[in-house]
Amino acid sequence: MRVMGVDPGLTRCGLSIVDGGSGRKVTAVDVGVVRTPGDMELAQRLLAVADAAERWMDTHEPGAVAIERVFAQHNVRTAMGTAQAGGVIALAAARRGIPVAFHTPSEVKAAVTGNGAADKKQVTAMVTRILGLASAPKPADAADALALAICHCWRAPLLERMAAAEAKAAAAQRRYKERLAEQRKAVHG
Amino acid sequence: MRVMGVDPGLTRCGLSIVDGGSGRKVTAVDVGVVRTPGDMELAQRLLAVADAAERWMDTHEPGAVAIERVFAQHNVRTAMGTAQAGGVIALAAARRGIPVAFHTPSEVKAAVTGNGAADKKQVTAMVTRILGLASAPKPADAADALALAICHCWRAPLLERMAAAEAKAAAAQRRYKERLAEQRKAVHG
Repeated sequence: MRVMGVDPGLTRCGLSIVDGGSGRKVTAVDVGVVRTPGDMELAQRLLAVADAAERWMDTHEPGAVAIERVFAQHNVRTAMGTAQAGGVIALAAARRGIPVAFHTPSEVKAAVTGNGAADKKQVTAMVTRILGLASAPKPADAADALALAICHCWRAPLLERMAAAEAKAAAAQRRYKERLAEQRKAVHG
Repeated sequence: MRVMGVDPGLTRCGLSIVDGGSGRKVTAVDVGVVRTPGDMELAQRLLAVADAAERWMDTHEPGAVAIERVFAQHNVRTAMGTAQAGGVIALAAARRGIPVAFHTPSEVKAAVTGNGAADKKQVTAMVTRILGLASAPKPADAADALALAICHCWRAPLLERMAAAEAKAAAAQRRYKERLAEQRKAVHG
């Protein structure tokens, strides 16, 4: 499965493409950072980010897009811009029928380092090692975008199995309720 | 000037079209609310909101889009969704070359009621009166979208004059600095 990882942002938006193989084998295909100037109008910044992400989608044709889930940060204004950048990329994927998944920063850190509270340095070091890169990806946003894609490659099969198990349980419960209703009907007529 | 007003949201997104005339004359052209279910995937909800807003833009061809600026709300998760809904609509406008403006809730309230801390009831009552509507627009998101468009019709000429004055002042300062540099050169060689 080919996954596009997105570390959303307006000032810097990290984009990556990672191919997931059998087991935990992952290969980096591309990585980069889109920048927009702070004095540009918000709508124009969103347009620049969306255009770049769409070019990546059309070039690399990922089977899934994994975006970092944004929480309230110290700077609320920055958090809103980050959420909006992630939103326009999710929209671009939805328009192309590409499934979108959101992973929290701690899910990503836990997936690549085994520690949900790992710092940026540890994440970068593990990403470099996992992908067998000659040098550490820079800036941190590029490393984060790769970490997101790796996280998705590894979590997606688990999430799919969980969804399948949940659907099976729901179907079993539905059948049970139907049988119960039939029995009641038979008794009370 | 024809203005599209947007009260952004995922659960309910208010959209309106208002024509601004000479002075404070404003006329309602259309108003509505787009709803997306809470159990729909985020990317699909953004797609539904963006599709609806784009249909409005292509049908009514507004000369400007005015969107409520989102601040941190009590519920951070809701605020993020609201910011993202506003983001995908700003993007749609930018793609069409339509200028986008953001107004804060207090700017909107001050514009239509004269009081930046007015409650929803007062805003709805004033919107109904200003537009000469037979009945109050419902739900509150529809009234808010109309209030945003009215606010923009009335603030836009002021904002343009302010921008022109600022540009003039900046040009004057630039000329002054150039003259100063020339004089210094003449004195010090």
